[in-house]
Amino acid sequence: MVTEFAEITVKPGMEREFEAGVAASVPVFLRAAGCHGVKLEHSIEHPEHFILMVTWETVAHHMEDFRNSPDFQVWRGNVGHCFAAPPKVYHTSTVVG
Amino acid sequence: MVTEFAEITVKPGMEREFEAGVAASVPVFLRAAGCHGVKLEHSIEHPEHFILMVTWETVAHHMEDFRNSPDFQVWRGNVGHCFAAPPKVYHTSTVVG
Repeated sequence: MVTEFAEITVKPGMEREFEAGVAASVPVFLRAAGCHGVKLEHSIEHPEHFILMVTWETVAHHMEDFRNSPDFQVWRGNVGHCFAAPPKVYHTSTVVG
Repeated sequence: MVTEFAEITVKPGMEREFEAGVAASVPVFLRAAGCHGVKLEHSIEHPEHFILMVTWETVAHHMEDFRNSPDFQVWRGNVGHCFAAPPKVYHTSTVVG
């Protein structure tokens, strides 16, 4: 199991709209092949900054299957207009804890 | 409850030593006032890059109580020599998921 981290900066004043777009997209992620959960963290020090964490069985489930599926466009349609810049995306595996 | 995110880049070749230092420090975190868990994520794309995630009751439990406790020096003694640069630290609250 891997975790997708997406560091997302939203346009000023779009924090609530972005959060609503993520909340509306939870079913989109949960129906994706190999997706096991999605969570959105909001920075306390930098309110325009969010961390989206999505649990996938493999990197390929995210980068190949999901990104090439129609649901990726649904996701981006729900939140893409809030982005101030392209998200910084990487994947991790848990090594402690 | 808040999550401390610490983005840590380690010196080349010190990945395993850093992981061992974090594993040895788990009890140090868990005995800290207001600490509820610690997890280390390792970047798949950038092997020198780690994300330490620590759950705290409040930001002050981390930034005031823990940072001013002798155990902060124990933690830094276990891992500080592995850091390639000062960690980038911020705190988040969960807004979705």
